[in-house]
Amino acid sequence: MEKYRVVFQLNEEDPLRINLVLSNIRNLIADLGGENLEIELVGYSNGVKIFLHSSEYAEIIDNLMFSGVKFAACSNTLNAMGIKTGRLVKGVEMVSSGIGELVRKQSHGWIYIRP
Amino acid sequence: MEKYRVVFQLNEEDPLRINLVLSNIRNLIADLGGENLEIELVGYSNGVKIFLHSSEYAEIIDNLMFSGVKFAACSNTLNAMGIKTGRLVKGVEMVSSGIGELVRKQSHGWIYIRP
Amino acid sequence: MEKYRVVFQLNEEDPLRINLVLSNIRNLIADLGGENLEIELVGYSNGVKIFLHSSEYAEIIDNLMFSGVKFAACSNTLNAMGIKTGRLVKGVEMVSSGIGELVRKQSHGWIYIRP
Repeated sequence: MEKYRVVFQLNEEDPLRINLVLSNIRNLIADLGGENLEIELVGYSNGVKIFLHSSEYAEIIDNLMFSGVKFAACSNTLNAMGIKTGRLVKGVEMVSSGIGELVRKQSHGWIYIRP
Repeated sequence: MEKYRVVFQLNEEDPLRINLVLSNIRNLIADLGGENLEIELVGYSNGVKIFLHSSEYAEIIDNLMFSGVKFAACSNTLNAMGIKTGRLVKGVEMVSSGIGELVRKQSHGWIYIRP
Repeated sequence: MEKYRVVFQLNEEDPLRINLVLSNIRNLIADLGGENLEIELVGYSNGVKIFLHSSEYAEIIDNLMFSGVKFAACSNTLNAMGIKTGRLVKGVEMVSSGIGELVRKQSHGWIYIRP
């Protein structure tokens, strides 16, 4: 069977939204099965802040990464905020822009979720 | 003509958001015609609360159901909130998870709307 | 190469959301290149207010229009708010309903972004 490929958007730093996105990812894996899924979370605007290794979400991100989830940080946002990539959780990938990544992924058939 | 198949997401209990979602559904039916549409609203996280028959939205849901709109409640959320299915408006369907349903529907070609 | 066709949704008047949508559009053009993009922003519910020529966003809209971005205003909303089309920035197009436009565009293969 072909895998479900799902791209999640996070562009806010509201803890309610962040927890919703992260629990959505966990519940999706539990429901459809990790072996049937490719998941990427794109963080941009204030959403990139969860990727900082000083963030309270760093351990959750690390665990999800271990389960195969990919995390993409918007370079535009990092530059605008003056955040060096060294301050991000190891394994987080850079994309030229978060919005561009969301469009590219969808143009390749990925399913879009905006929690 | 093939029908438009549209899945709506509701994961909040903010009355502004709820009213927006419900009026979106009504306006979509008015614009494209009920005979050309298959619509499902997926409620999860705090969004499931509108499905309670004690909810102030119960009658609107009942009316929309009569117009052919389907309503799907996230079992994960109901379990977490300790809500028995007997407390929901009659006709609301159960899905294993709201997020899984949104992904499955899109993988079958449904259009996604997040009001 | 085929163009990326992207439809953006705006249904709120929160300045944070408005600025996010408008900067998303600018960043998308910068990332993927205007020559590779067709972009439409659909404004409905409180989102139509940015289209008023008295709005503080009128000049940005005018500039984006000059870059080829299309703007579509929901007639339903304008009627409900008693806004005559003469009060909108020149070039903004009318659609029967914002939600219908978002569904129609997606049914024609457009990519959906809800910032």
